[in-house]
Amino acid sequence: MEKIPTSTLKRLPQYLEVLRKLKKAGLKEVSATKISVFADIHQTLVRKDISYTAISATKTGYQIGPLQKAIEELLNWVDTSASILVGVGHLGSALLGYQEFSQRGLAIVAGFDNDPQIIDTKVHGVPVYSALDITTFAQKQKIQIGIITVPPDSAQLIADIMVHSGIKGIWNFTPHKIIVPPDIIVENVDMFASLAVLSRRLAERQ
Amino acid sequence: MEKIPTSTLKRLPQYLEVLRKLKKAGLKEVSATKISVFADIHQTLVRKDISYTAISATKTGYQIGPLQKAIEELLNWVDTSASILVGVGHLGSALLGYQEFSQRGLAIVAGFDNDPQIIDTKVHGVPVYSALDITTFAQKQKIQIGIITVPPDSAQLIADIMVHSGIKGIWNFTPHKIIVPPDIIVENVDMFASLAVLSRRLAERQ
Repeated sequence: MEKIPTSTLKRLPQYLEVLRKLKKAGLKEVSATKISVFADIHQTLVRKDISYTAISATKTGYQIGPLQKAIEELLNWVDTSASILVGVGHLGSALLGYQEFSQRGLAIVAGFDNDPQIIDTKVHGVPVYSALDITTFAQKQKIQIGIITVPPDSAQLIADIMVHSGIKGIWNFTPHKIIVPPDIIVENVDMFASLAVLSRRLAERQ
Repeated sequence: MEKIPTSTLKRLPQYLEVLRKLKKAGLKEVSATKISVFADIHQTLVRKDISYTAISATKTGYQIGPLQKAIEELLNWVDTSASILVGVGHLGSALLGYQEFSQRGLAIVAGFDNDPQIIDTKVHGVPVYSALDITTFAQKQKIQIGIITVPPDSAQLIADIMVHSGIKGIWNFTPHKIIVPPDIIVENVDMFASLAVLSRRLAERQ
């Protein structure tokens, strides 16, 4: 499968967001210029990014439905991947209840924690099990994606357990930089990196 | 105030994380090499990033305490900025309860929503008010930072209200690209961009 640049991958969800809105407004076609305006991304980039799909524009633009589908296919969001989440605290619970994932190819089928109060309960409809059972569950269900929302000090341990359990992709929501073998994909949602930029830029302006 | 590159700003929280751990383990000094190993960032970058502080290394390395403090000062994390959060759903509630912010210069002093069920209640100890009161509250309290956790379709409206209320920095947790005047700082925590990279890279490996 062709390797798509990270910068393109990160922009594709924004186009989907624009297409969803235009479709909702009753439109059937859209030009690259219009996508560019709504997504606030330069036209040249929009065209380049969309060229990774097999969809080409007619005189009046791209057909919204097929373009949506083609982008979702590029992102592997058409099929749903089963994932588990470890660390059912405030943030973990929020993610278990986040409806938006299901439309983006992600189903969180179980949560894991070490708090006896929540083990064997359901959080937003998702069952929560003991963290001791991660490996058994992940291997049996052939889980590919693991989401880490534990405190940062436990992140590496959980990552090690996930890798040992056959998980191939880790979505890390902690500020801890986890170290994994080269065949494992890690993506970080680093809130503090983003907060650092916001805080400093505000200070620079004052 | 000197403008620090975004890439450096994004790495600084990782060094803080490493320093925090080493301090907890009883260390007083640390070399750039050690920080490099723990943060998984090249030594040259570590040294360059730290050079933005006034701290220099002795033969045995950097003094952990002063280095922590200097980085926190660079990030403006020493003083606490009062912020508000709009959209107290799953994710918004989680952020209201997120203890880690207070050590990173951010205090969320109020939440806002349009759900009568939660208006005038407290969520994780933070009062929640009607979204109609954002402007009055933000102006009176001179709020500088606004956090957006509403559904994407409402993100632009909330951003407009925030700007109108004198807010200078917006932390946007929705996938909607908000458009603001040039003097307003926007930082996006774009989970779906990250999920897009993870999903595609996994598919590419299969």
